[in-house]
Amino acid sequence: MADTSFPPLALSLGDPAGIGPELIAAAWAARSAEGLPPFFAVGGAELLMAAARSRGLDIPIAEIDDPAEAAAAFPHALPVLKGPDGLYRPGEPDAEGARLALWSLDQAAQLAVAGQAAGVVTGPIAKSLLAEIGFSFPGQTEFVAHKSGVAAADAVMMLAGPTLRTVPMTVHCALRDVPELLTIDLICARTRITAKALQQDFGLDAPRIAIAALNPHAGENGRMGDEEQRIIGPAIAQLRSEGIDATGPHPADSLFAPRARTTYDVAIAMYHDQALVPLKALDFDKGVNMTLGLPIIRTSPDHGTAFAIAGKGEADPGATIAAIRMAGEAAARRISAKQAASV
Amino acid sequence: MADTSFPPLALSLGDPAGIGPELIAAAWAARSAEGLPPFFAVGGAELLMAAARSRGLDIPIAEIDDPAEAAAAFPHALPVLKGPDGLYRPGEPDAEGARLALWSLDQAAQLAVAGQAAGVVTGPIAKSLLAEIGFSFPGQTEFVAHKSGVAAADAVMMLAGPTLRTVPMTVHCALRDVPELLTIDLICARTRITAKALQQDFGLDAPRIAIAALNPHAGENGRMGDEEQRIIGPAIAQLRSEGIDATGPHPADSLFAPRARTTYDVAIAMYHDQALVPLKALDFDKGVNMTLGLPIIRTSPDHGTAFAIAGKGEADPGATIAAIRMAGEAAARRISAKQAASV
Repeated sequence: MADTSFPPLALSLGDPAGIGPELIAAAWAARSAEGLPPFFAVGGAELLMAAARSRGLDIPIAEIDDPAEAAAAFPHALPVLKGPDGLYRPGEPDAEGARLALWSLDQAAQLAVAGQAAGVVTGPIAKSLLAEIGFSFPGQTEFVAHKSGVAAADAVMMLAGPTLRTVPMTVHCALRDVPELLTIDLICARTRITAKALQQDFGLDAPRIAIAALNPHAGENGRMGDEEQRIIGPAIAQLRSEGIDATGPHPADSLFAPRARTTYDVAIAMYHDQALVPLKALDFDKGVNMTLGLPIIRTSPDHGTAFAIAGKGEADPGATIAAIRMAGEAAARRISAKQAASV
Repeated sequence: MADTSFPPLALSLGDPAGIGPELIAAAWAARSAEGLPPFFAVGGAELLMAAARSRGLDIPIAEIDDPAEAAAAFPHALPVLKGPDGLYRPGEPDAEGARLALWSLDQAAQLAVAGQAAGVVTGPIAKSLLAEIGFSFPGQTEFVAHKSGVAAADAVMMLAGPTLRTVPMTVHCALRDVPELLTIDLICARTRITAKALQQDFGLDAPRIAIAALNPHAGENGRMGDEEQRIIGPAIAQLRSEGIDATGPHPADSLFAPRARTTYDVAIAMYHDQALVPLKALDFDKGVNMTLGLPIIRTSPDHGTAFAIAGKGEADPGATIAAIRMAGEAAARRISAKQAASV
């Protein structure tokens, strides 16, 4: 029988004044109940202990020098890779904390690229604080893409909750700019990446991909916008000609209704809120942000630093646990595929 | 004790080849279980009996000459106002059916305007078929507004389900046109109408009104669109200065999440899908469309004719029942307010 074990997952701390550290501790505490794969935190041993105590968790820490030590330690202690540490001051972010967050993220990504970590689960950061210390990327997604040698345009954000997976074609731009940003090439490129990721990381041989319209009622044959006819429809035709099971353009309002959601594996949305509104309405606190199109696996809980509730024991670890599980399942699939290919 | 009874509600048939007629029959059959107020159908006695039979319902019909007879008949039979009738051919719409649907709608609206009906619950029509017989209104909302002497621009569509009420500021237009259509005046005018309706028809003395942003993350201080700063923010300031409890602009993706929904009575959306996506994701088959700003009460199930399933017994009467209940509750509040004012 093939050895289907894989290296541990690397968890970056996120901003030390946010809810990232306490959620790492909470996820480790839930490792057995949730059946989580081995993971380790990147740096911040003292910080993590303090964050754990703020939730009433007394967690043993195993400081490790190498990710390869994580699996053995994991059942009994939270493995933490030796590195910089910080004072735990929840709700009080500063430049020092931002530097620690960046070091942890950078190190986690490097370990994944080097194959010493099976993937990286990134904790929430404060972009404005990182920008002040010279971080020049729009967000962690672009940073991780860069570290793994992929152009930011080819890194595709998927949001996944228990009841919905969705991929927006445009993300952080003004709504008024969306129509001009949508092109046949963009939709085809990002949908191809999505289809491949669902095969590779989710075990779906022929993923069913439902593509949303931009305009209400899908434009009603051009009466309310023509992007369906000029752009989205032709993109779907192209994708289908390549053997991808893409359908649409579907009116967005019915696409996310309960029965409709059973008919596809992923919904392709045209803009940020078209994807995020239904995801958060349905699966709030459980959403995972996964970056598709990278050689490495990267997931993240789909929430921010939540400085206002950090250290108060209120933050829900559900999304972090889901992000760890999703990364672990993807890692297991990639290992199996590799071994099948090498037999 | 004041007599708080009110006239019956008038139900228009909708397109006779659609699911409208069978849902009237199903709602009447559920009148006791659902505690529905008295209502009558406008025309189509034979049609309604046939539609009822298609669902396995054997419903007694009481043909009435005057709405005033409806309440006495209602417990024992479905009251139907005498008028044109039609052949029941589910799934096969034609011009004759469209004419019957229009007559029924017109008559129902007239009875509400005249005070003979406490309000009108409109069944689903096929706009393209009505257009072919000369109906020049974009939809039933504009027709009912016209009949009750209100400009279409002052008739405001609210969608309401068990877990969400939402009012889009723009409705049937291309997404690319939304930014130009949004003005401070438009948002103020429609939000004022909404606030007044929630007081008058829903008994909320000081309705909490959450106003959504247009851009992702509410534009992040202008980095991704400036409509929040130029238009939505100033509109909220104006509304608050008038004593209306309006808040925002709220990032749309978190506005519809479960906890956020407990903090407001209605969410003001900037465009069709921003309102309809969460409503249908959460409350599909239960959504009610209510027209605010009219002197009469008008509700409607928020679904179409569904020709494909008409006559098959599959159509869910939930939204029709909810529309009848909402109209009845609004009628009771208006009657109480009138009597309190006259004491």
